[in-house]
Amino acid sequence: MSALKGATPIHFGPFLVTPQVFHTTPLTFALVNLKPILPGHVLVSPRRIVPRVADLSPTETSDLFLTVRRVGRMVERVYGAASLNIAVQDGEHAGQSVPHVHAHIIPRRAADLDHAGGTDAIYDLLDGAEGDVARAWRDAGADTSADKGEERVQRRSRFPAVDNEGRKPRGEQEMRAEAEMLAREMEKEPVD
Amino acid sequence: MSALKGATPIHFGPFLVTPQVFHTTPLTFALVNLKPILPGHVLVSPRRIVPRVADLSPTETSDLFLTVRRVGRMVERVYGAASLNIAVQDGEHAGQSVPHVHAHIIPRRAADLDHAGGTDAIYDLLDGAEGDVARAWRDAGADTSADKGEERVQRRSRFPAVDNEGRKPRGEQEMRAEAEMLAREMEKEPVD
Repeated sequence: MSALKGATPIHFGPFLVTPQVFHTTPLTFALVNLKPILPGHVLVSPRRIVPRVADLSPTETSDLFLTVRRVGRMVERVYGAASLNIAVQDGEHAGQSVPHVHAHIIPRRAADLDHAGGTDAIYDLLDGAEGDVARAWRDAGADTSADKGEERVQRRSRFPAVDNEGRKPRGEQEMRAEAEMLAREMEKEPVD
Repeated sequence: MSALKGATPIHFGPFLVTPQVFHTTPLTFALVNLKPILPGHVLVSPRRIVPRVADLSPTETSDLFLTVRRVGRMVERVYGAASLNIAVQDGEHAGQSVPHVHAHIIPRRAADLDHAGGTDAIYDLLDGAEGDVARAWRDAGADTSADKGEERVQRRSRFPAVDNEGRKPRGEQEMRAEAEMLAREMEKEPVD
């Protein structure tokens, strides 16, 4: 089952994420997060499972970031945001937890993290357990049978993730519903 | 004077940065930093001064991120790194301090920030005064006569920048020498 009709199975590293995917191109896909740091926090990845941006072809690189631009514009609109954090942890020593290239896109609004310490608290959240996409999917029992990659040990930030213990991973139904909504919204976005 | 022969003046937001530029394409340029967070921390920007990724054309977007990929590969090699942090603060509410699109590229090595708290301390440095490119250029008395944009107030991270007081802005000569070295190294990088 997928938000996208007729979609073939899509893996994010070792995880089967087809129901969470809301947009695909021949080379790229975009998926909702199990534990979004802020509303509309999504990921964009190449279809080919490679760990580093330098492993991508120029065509794959262009398609990835054109998709980041288009998806970013969409989530900014849908979630009523005014800015975006775009971040790639490109390799293990940069904090990458799933060895499959992925760009985080996080819609930002004025004062949206004042309760957590201010605008830049986003990075503590991205670094902490909130942003650990590998652990989140693993904890949720996502299918790892594809065995497409080894999970890596991620170093923890020296700062605790704000409000982490109070957040629950979302259920499959909630993610699927969001993916279906975002798939419809992507259809409204101009191609360029 | 520039690391690039025959270069026309290049502005990063309101700042004239021609001597710090080590690579250009018709649509994109790359420059060394006044106060790099780690060795090889560089910025990549579109030639056209616009604040948001969504303001770029698809061609500009592709060229920007193909340049990020190529420059990233180069700095990773030259600075003996094994990973890269790639980050765009896309808009004021995402922490952007100069209203001109720019991607930070930061080469990472194993244990390179153990003294500062671990791998993810990079974000505290990026958020703190270390990463405030507007303030760094302003403090250095960079030419702002171009008046191409208003500087914005950047909110400070709730965490102090590690070792900030001990770091000095680099001199023009040091930056120019690094830009010249990196310009030569870019010539060794395959185009694709």
